[in-house]
Amino acid sequence: MTKQKVPAAPSVRRLPSYLQLVKKAEADKLEYISGTVIAEELELEPIQVRKDLTITGIVGKPKKGYPVKSLITAIEKFLGWNKAKKAFVIGAGSLGTALSGYNGLKEFGLEICAAFDSDKKKIGKEIHGLPVFRIEELDQKVKEYNPEIAILTVPSAYAQEAANTLVKAGIKAIWNFTSIKINVPAGVVVQKEDLSSGYAMLGVMMSIKK
Amino acid sequence: MTKQKVPAAPSVRRLPSYLQLVKKAEADKLEYISGTVIAEELELEPIQVRKDLTITGIVGKPKKGYPVKSLITAIEKFLGWNKAKKAFVIGAGSLGTALSGYNGLKEFGLEICAAFDSDKKKIGKEIHGLPVFRIEELDQKVKEYNPEIAILTVPSAYAQEAANTLVKAGIKAIWNFTSIKINVPAGVVVQKEDLSSGYAMLGVMMSIKK
Repeated sequence: MTKQKVPAAPSVRRLPSYLQLVKKAEADKLEYISGTVIAEELELEPIQVRKDLTITGIVGKPKKGYPVKSLITAIEKFLGWNKAKKAFVIGAGSLGTALSGYNGLKEFGLEICAAFDSDKKKIGKEIHGLPVFRIEELDQKVKEYNPEIAILTVPSAYAQEAANTLVKAGIKAIWNFTSIKINVPAGVVVQKEDLSSGYAMLGVMMSIKK
Repeated sequence: MTKQKVPAAPSVRRLPSYLQLVKKAEADKLEYISGTVIAEELELEPIQVRKDLTITGIVGKPKKGYPVKSLITAIEKFLGWNKAKKAFVIGAGSLGTALSGYNGLKEFGLEICAAFDSDKKKIGKEIHGLPVFRIEELDQKVKEYNPEIAILTVPSAYAQEAANTLVKAGIKAIWNFTSIKINVPAGVVVQKEDLSSGYAMLGVMMSIKK
């Protein structure tokens, strides 16, 4: 399994909220936004804001702050969000269908082109306007659509098998929404999301409070 | 804003994957599961497994491992997942609709009873068999359904306003899927999920790889 080391992961994770805030400043026709304002809005320490934004290469000007347009460009470039990315959803179950229809992902430049499933009742139909193909058609459809990302939402028991199929078809980035850690060869990156972890945290907080 | 400190948050976040694995052992009619097996399956160090499971109060037996049934009960009790919890979804947009239909949440004992929106075209209709009510009806519906959790999926610009309404209606736990940090009074817990953070990580890993 590849361990892809990301520099300053917590800073990277905060960049989308910076981006959102700075885009709002742009919509408000502001030329600069101060680190202090950003810090207040996001409830962070000003020194943390400076440190986080350093990774984008943009430096604030004394008394003025960060140049809004350059900062937007720099964050988007750093995250690779300056170019739209095509994705396939693997598993047209409830979560796969959910993500296919979630407009929030489009804002990041993520364009889902198609979904794949093994259920004959789903194949050939559409979910949120996307075609649902047989998983056996993956190879061919990868050549056709040229997606960079696969969003994995199959049942956990099939997660590794599906990941192997994806890798074989040439997919180099997997966004894993199953609860299984998948093994992939070097050169393939995996980002794991887990709603159950968040719900576990909520449950414990609720217990503590009582 | 309340800062609810959860002891050993990373351990808590890993408990759902332990639970899933131990439930599989139960389905396979195993009486015990060894820490080493758990460690291998989840790609963790055995010492980490021991440490994580300590918070549930269950101790492994030498040479045998952890008693499967007791461990399941203990994890579910620790997470508060031994009792089903009712929830409202606030915001019947794409993500709210997605989560309402996501069966993965039912496995954790989360029962979504109703959705709320301000869009007249959605009110009075159903999403995945759930009624969609007007946000103004929240007070009354909280009394009627007695939900413990609100899942917040409104557009970010309305997140704080919606949170205020929820708190006023007596909701004590908010699962926040907006990209905004919301402020709540003491006694109300908030767990924030952010898909854009995960997608940011994926984007950076993809850039590094190239």
